[in-house]
Amino acid sequence: MTDAYARLDFRRRERIGMVEAVWGEHKSVEQIAAILKMFQSRNQMALVTRVSSQKAEIVLESIQEATYHVEANCLTVGDPLPKESSLGRVVVVSGGTSDLQVAKESQLALECHGIETDLLLDVGVAGLHRLLENLNYLKEAKVLIVCAGMEGALPTVISGLLPQPIVGVPISVGYGMSSKGKAALAGMLSSCSPGLVVVNIDNGYGAAMAALRIIKIQKH
Amino acid sequence: MTDAYARLDFRRRERIGMVEAVWGEHKSVEQIAAILKMFQSRNQMALVTRVSSQKAEIVLESIQEATYHVEANCLTVGDPLPKESSLGRVVVVSGGTSDLQVAKESQLALECHGIETDLLLDVGVAGLHRLLENLNYLKEAKVLIVCAGMEGALPTVISGLLPQPIVGVPISVGYGMSSKGKAALAGMLSSCSPGLVVVNIDNGYGAAMAALRIIKIQKH
Amino acid sequence: MTDAYARLDFRRRERIGMVEAVWGEHKSVEQIAAILKMFQSRNQMALVTRVSSQKAEIVLESIQEATYHVEANCLTVGDPLPKESSLGRVVVVSGGTSDLQVAKESQLALECHGIETDLLLDVGVAGLHRLLENLNYLKEAKVLIVCAGMEGALPTVISGLLPQPIVGVPISVGYGMSSKGKAALAGMLSSCSPGLVVVNIDNGYGAAMAALRIIKIQKH
Amino acid sequence: MTDAYARLDFRRRERIGMVEAVWGEHKSVEQIAAILKMFQSRNQMALVTRVSSQKAEIVLESIQEATYHVEANCLTVGDPLPKESSLGRVVVVSGGTSDLQVAKESQLALECHGIETDLLLDVGVAGLHRLLENLNYLKEAKVLIVCAGMEGALPTVISGLLPQPIVGVPISVGYGMSSKGKAALAGMLSSCSPGLVVVNIDNGYGAAMAALRIIKIQKH
Amino acid sequence: MTDAYARLDFRRRERIGMVEAVWGEHKSVEQIAAILKMFQSRNQMALVTRVSSQKAEIVLESIQEATYHVEANCLTVGDPLPKESSLGRVVVVSGGTSDLQVAKESQLALECHGIETDLLLDVGVAGLHRLLENLNYLKEAKVLIVCAGMEGALPTVISGLLPQPIVGVPISVGYGMSSKGKAALAGMLSSCSPGLVVVNIDNGYGAAMAALRIIKIQKH
Amino acid sequence: MTDAYARLDFRRRERIGMVEAVWGEHKSVEQIAAILKMFQSRNQMALVTRVSSQKAEIVLESIQEATYHVEANCLTVGDPLPKESSLGRVVVVSGGTSDLQVAKESQLALECHGIETDLLLDVGVAGLHRLLENLNYLKEAKVLIVCAGMEGALPTVISGLLPQPIVGVPISVGYGMSSKGKAALAGMLSSCSPGLVVVNIDNGYGAAMAALRIIKIQKH
Amino acid sequence: MTDAYARLDFRRRERIGMVEAVWGEHKSVEQIAAILKMFQSRNQMALVTRVSSQKAEIVLESIQEATYHVEANCLTVGDPLPKESSLGRVVVVSGGTSDLQVAKESQLALECHGIETDLLLDVGVAGLHRLLENLNYLKEAKVLIVCAGMEGALPTVISGLLPQPIVGVPISVGYGMSSKGKAALAGMLSSCSPGLVVVNIDNGYGAAMAALRIIKIQKH
Amino acid sequence: MTDAYARLDFRRRERIGMVEAVWGEHKSVEQIAAILKMFQSRNQMALVTRVSSQKAEIVLESIQEATYHVEANCLTVGDPLPKESSLGRVVVVSGGTSDLQVAKESQLALECHGIETDLLLDVGVAGLHRLLENLNYLKEAKVLIVCAGMEGALPTVISGLLPQPIVGVPISVGYGMSSKGKAALAGMLSSCSPGLVVVNIDNGYGAAMAALRIIKIQKH
Repeated sequence: MTDAYARLDFRRRERIGMVEAVWGEHKSVEQIAAILKMFQSRNQMALVTRVSSQKAEIVLESIQEATYHVEANCLTVGDPLPKESSLGRVVVVSGGTSDLQVAKESQLALECHGIETDLLLDVGVAGLHRLLENLNYLKEAKVLIVCAGMEGALPTVISGLLPQPIVGVPISVGYGMSSKGKAALAGMLSSCSPGLVVVNIDNGYGAAMAALRIIKIQKH
Repeated sequence: MTDAYARLDFRRRERIGMVEAVWGEHKSVEQIAAILKMFQSRNQMALVTRVSSQKAEIVLESIQEATYHVEANCLTVGDPLPKESSLGRVVVVSGGTSDLQVAKESQLALECHGIETDLLLDVGVAGLHRLLENLNYLKEAKVLIVCAGMEGALPTVISGLLPQPIVGVPISVGYGMSSKGKAALAGMLSSCSPGLVVVNIDNGYGAAMAALRIIKIQKH
Repeated sequence: MTDAYARLDFRRRERIGMVEAVWGEHKSVEQIAAILKMFQSRNQMALVTRVSSQKAEIVLESIQEATYHVEANCLTVGDPLPKESSLGRVVVVSGGTSDLQVAKESQLALECHGIETDLLLDVGVAGLHRLLENLNYLKEAKVLIVCAGMEGALPTVISGLLPQPIVGVPISVGYGMSSKGKAALAGMLSSCSPGLVVVNIDNGYGAAMAALRIIKIQKH
Repeated sequence: MTDAYARLDFRRRERIGMVEAVWGEHKSVEQIAAILKMFQSRNQMALVTRVSSQKAEIVLESIQEATYHVEANCLTVGDPLPKESSLGRVVVVSGGTSDLQVAKESQLALECHGIETDLLLDVGVAGLHRLLENLNYLKEAKVLIVCAGMEGALPTVISGLLPQPIVGVPISVGYGMSSKGKAALAGMLSSCSPGLVVVNIDNGYGAAMAALRIIKIQKH
Repeated sequence: MTDAYARLDFRRRERIGMVEAVWGEHKSVEQIAAILKMFQSRNQMALVTRVSSQKAEIVLESIQEATYHVEANCLTVGDPLPKESSLGRVVVVSGGTSDLQVAKESQLALECHGIETDLLLDVGVAGLHRLLENLNYLKEAKVLIVCAGMEGALPTVISGLLPQPIVGVPISVGYGMSSKGKAALAGMLSSCSPGLVVVNIDNGYGAAMAALRIIKIQKH
Repeated sequence: MTDAYARLDFRRRERIGMVEAVWGEHKSVEQIAAILKMFQSRNQMALVTRVSSQKAEIVLESIQEATYHVEANCLTVGDPLPKESSLGRVVVVSGGTSDLQVAKESQLALECHGIETDLLLDVGVAGLHRLLENLNYLKEAKVLIVCAGMEGALPTVISGLLPQPIVGVPISVGYGMSSKGKAALAGMLSSCSPGLVVVNIDNGYGAAMAALRIIKIQKH
Repeated sequence: MTDAYARLDFRRRERIGMVEAVWGEHKSVEQIAAILKMFQSRNQMALVTRVSSQKAEIVLESIQEATYHVEANCLTVGDPLPKESSLGRVVVVSGGTSDLQVAKESQLALECHGIETDLLLDVGVAGLHRLLENLNYLKEAKVLIVCAGMEGALPTVISGLLPQPIVGVPISVGYGMSSKGKAALAGMLSSCSPGLVVVNIDNGYGAAMAALRIIKIQKH
Repeated sequence: MTDAYARLDFRRRERIGMVEAVWGEHKSVEQIAAILKMFQSRNQMALVTRVSSQKAEIVLESIQEATYHVEANCLTVGDPLPKESSLGRVVVVSGGTSDLQVAKESQLALECHGIETDLLLDVGVAGLHRLLENLNYLKEAKVLIVCAGMEGALPTVISGLLPQPIVGVPISVGYGMSSKGKAALAGMLSSCSPGLVVVNIDNGYGAAMAALRIIKIQKH
């Protein structure tokens, strides 16, 4: 069965500049450990997302060099890519504490690639003043990742106020008609504010990779 | 075939305090004319919503006393109920010019019941300053009806800023994932702002009747 | 990590007149306790909704002054706002016993704001006489909150009989085509009865805040 | 191309006791005429549903013996089956005038099979008194067909009051969340009233055939 | 809290001829026991559907006179209504063994009302011969209740072969595009076979009450 | 603008053995004519699907060598591939006359590739005998393409009776819950009959190309 | 209760050439054991799909001759049909390791029928080179079964490159807008690549039976 | 009525760097002309999207200085912002000729802001070689906008091959399960390729504004 997870895409970094990332949610502890070892043996960085703390604990027993990032629910092995401070900073913004794990996944994924990040929490549209007070701070960022559940209005409001690239991340928090993030997603896609782009629901990693693609155009 | 539309609910006004309203969209010119005549003969006010100008023109030929309200796409016969200025004012707010017809239908339906109204257009969330400049004005209203299409964020933002009853009206404007108003509706229902209530997509008349029920509790 | 839930909206009461409410469903026992302590230390009332009795028990161990409202699945700290009996009463109506928790959440949320409430249970449309017998009683209420699952017809029937503001709350009870409350929601929004407004599925708290906004227009 | 519509099911009447019915909506005038002629030549009754008056006019030019039923949008040739008055009557009930065509299609389809029918219009739940006044009359029917659009609550209310078989017909009237009859359908299927059965949206003919199957169990 | 489930509809039997039935799925063991006791004390029959064997066991400890029907997942107290053999028999047909519980719920609910029933299992359309072999047997029934999951074609096929009333019950068995019974439901409602009626997904009790309404028209 | 439709895939035939096919529905008369001319000038066969007779007429004026296939709504230029009778025959089966155009599109697309086809119409499951009478004939086919709208049960029934490859084509005929072919599609995918495969709604061309891929495995 | 699962379709193999397969997901350990014994006693092969290892363990205690295929989550009794190597090979292709179980179910189901199979894993479209390197190998297969979750693009890309029959299997892996495989399914059905056919989400067994039907046309 | 479209957001350019754009689809010829005149009188550039050639013709009669861009269905007045060639180029890629209008809308919107663009058409995944041949060319672009209808796989494939920011635009072309672009949208959001971002269906203008936000980070 070793073959079942052996065809990893080791050439990905040279092709599109990203360290390998593995979606850990449906993988067994054994599969995750085997994958991490493969990268370890090649001295490559790797990121495993959506790993519960229970699963992480067991993995860490067999791979002591791995690190578990508890707020982000992620495991890593190897060293992050070298810091690229000259590219500027990505700020991850979030409307509520329930978005924390997704926001942290975004931050970690960017930091693995040497990108500087910051986090601004709890600036939801129901209390607009909290956002407006931070506007000047947000103007400094190169790229914004904006997480929002429920009605998902936050990225719309921010993109009407600021000129940067804004990646909206719908969050699956909510109930009833929020339909596990589909209301937030539909709202962001239907936004009356021009130039807002969106990734899949709860896809903090995807938003980070989008921000990475964007921030790196300065180097081309 | 007269019987087909003869069982009108003439007791509605005494029961729930509303003048008769007829949904004109799927009714023929003949049906609309017959209904209006019945009310005319009883000296009662009646409101027919969703009547195109083409249909209205033909109806007006046979019932000269009827009035067509072109921006609201509505026909009326009879006199509005007496003005109730002491109850205060309902302000109808709208995010874009595409919501105009629904907003006007709301205004007209309230004015038929003697309620004072006002209209504030084009204060969408993509340019937040337009809303913030009008906040003090909105604070004067007894009830707000807030129309919004696309992502439908406007009622959420307003209800986070103001304490009044706010009736959200999702508008079917938009395309793709706005799904004929369903994104706006889901957004309003999932709103992170407490106490926002919603009516069906494009239901300007329904929002008006909700506002009427609300504003009249002052008289009980 | 304290920062993650520190940006609470302490100015909400002065802005829109509501005590702080926290959605407890996805929060950990530690998060809930920390939030309650923050409000306690400021002598402010706070309401945490959707807290299971298991979670509540643990929270109560560290905050003895908190109260758990078992039928409403809610925790509170601090004193309710002063009684405002002159404003009249909100009656919460429900079609079946399965709606009890949502109805109780509505009641509690209003009582936290000093509003008088009452509860009328099990008056579903399948046995219409139970509703008709209570009609005179319902006429006394200033505002009605009407909970209904399955086909959700109860608010439609009541709003055809009574002139008050009626806030429909679709309930997620049912199976198959009731689609976790979406049939009831769609039914209420499509209602042939004018002026019915709706909140999200199971959103007892939201309905209460809508009723609060409404009943307070008498004070403006 | 004659073969394309030649394999008609001439044995259907002996197998399940129904005269042939053809769904005319997507058939051309030529196809309808050819089908009617085939039945005419065999002296069999046939019913073509959903034929616009424009199409009917052209068909009637070539088949003078056919009859167009304008309110039902149907064409027939041949004689109805003999009257079966001893079986009792089917009453078709409808909540609004917009349901008229579907209700008439039901009536006609039953009359083609010799079943006595009656029609009760405009007894929607928004004005409940209109229904309650007719309750004794409805008690006389053997089977009830109840058409309702929008929230579709009428069959639920009636089936809570009366013991007969009730066939609900959701009607595609409405807009927004009524979703072309899907809200009414979901409501009827989720009904809290036991023993209500449902046919497809706008399927007046299907409801009639269900009533026919039911009323004929008295003869077995 | 006794009031929460006290407003039972004791007049239902005289109004629409049905013994009281309670949906047990979301009720606690305490609620179920209390309800059963109320009926016991009035010497009335009662049926509680969707009770797991674990819950049933606990209820039976406090109410020894209750009976648990394990295949139907139902509890009963009191005596069934007197047998009405002259009315004929309802046959419950099912396409697969996965439908067994729903089919048994139907049978039990009819037997509580004195109606004779029979069960024909495993006659799915993928092996048509099993159905065709039983056709003469099915012709004897007064009413057929036909359960089918997955594509739900069985009631369509049967209703093309037999003239009786057929109540289709979509079953939530299946995965992927069977969408928990919604494919079967949509298939039955879209059926090309005339006069098929449908109840909600898995609603064995509802189908039984429909059959009861139908079979009793012979007595009116 | 010539460039806009110049990058045709002229190497497709050598790669996957199919003549070029162009989806004509959203193309203008000018675009269709230009494409056909390109293939003509290269002496290649080409098939344009979904061309209305109005559009075809205009195209034919400028390209006399093109042929319009009226029942299939298709245009062709060039000679079909040589007959491959030794491969056997594909039979296209259809449940109703409304499926005719899709069935004919399938036939034509196969005939363009030299595959022998036949058509069996009007064998819907509501009158099962029509299908059973043709079973031996169907046994002769190498591959079956089975079109069905409404509940889409026909391919399920056939695939339970016959061992060949069966490609189901859901047809968009129907109304209400048939949801423009989605009920038929969901039914076919949820089929209890093993080994049924499906193409998109109304995709007669796609079903033909699937049958072509299948029948040609005999030549490898 | 033995009758409840006794009407097995023992004639299926002679009719459509398939060994009996039982869907084990919702069956109890007792039901599975009873079914396997019935086949054992008739010396017939049988395959039970979707059996967890926990359930399998218990079944194996009472039926030692059964085999559990752990990667495929399947149980079998009896000998596979004789090898038919002359028919060629079916290759099962998969985009990610998460599809492994479905792919293995396909392989096993084919091997039960004597068909030779092979498995090619981890050739997802995000790293196209992995697919292109294996193209010549894939050209050798008679039929391809291509599993893909998330956006489901793999079967589209392969069917644009190769002429064989390709059966797409959407996989329920993913989150948010992948909607448990519905995005992959919709993508495969909407594919711009001609002649791709599809089975239900996760239906590895169904894809195998489709491949069996196809590969066996060489024997007719 | 002038007020209805007077509150234009003239400060938008200074705030977020974009020229005013007006969604022309639901606006009347009079409304479009009035808006264009307002910008003309202020010497500002303005872009009106989704204007049919019929409507454009009439507008051009009253505003001769306006330009109609026929392939993009857009009207403009005023001069584009000065060229910013040093920022590099945005390439708009499209899978089929049916996407042309959306792609052209993207190009035009960028050119209004002085951004250099190019267009690469007809490189759909069904004929992969057309894409692979252009890979080196695409590597030169700063940002890619990739339009795709049907299964929408093109942006997934490209983002697996190239490191730049890629904005996916789902196109509403297709039928059946492509659901007016929703299959393509779901596919792009579920993409297994990291860092792909998406805008609403057919939103060429939005994709352009996203690319503008991105490409301008080089200037900050």
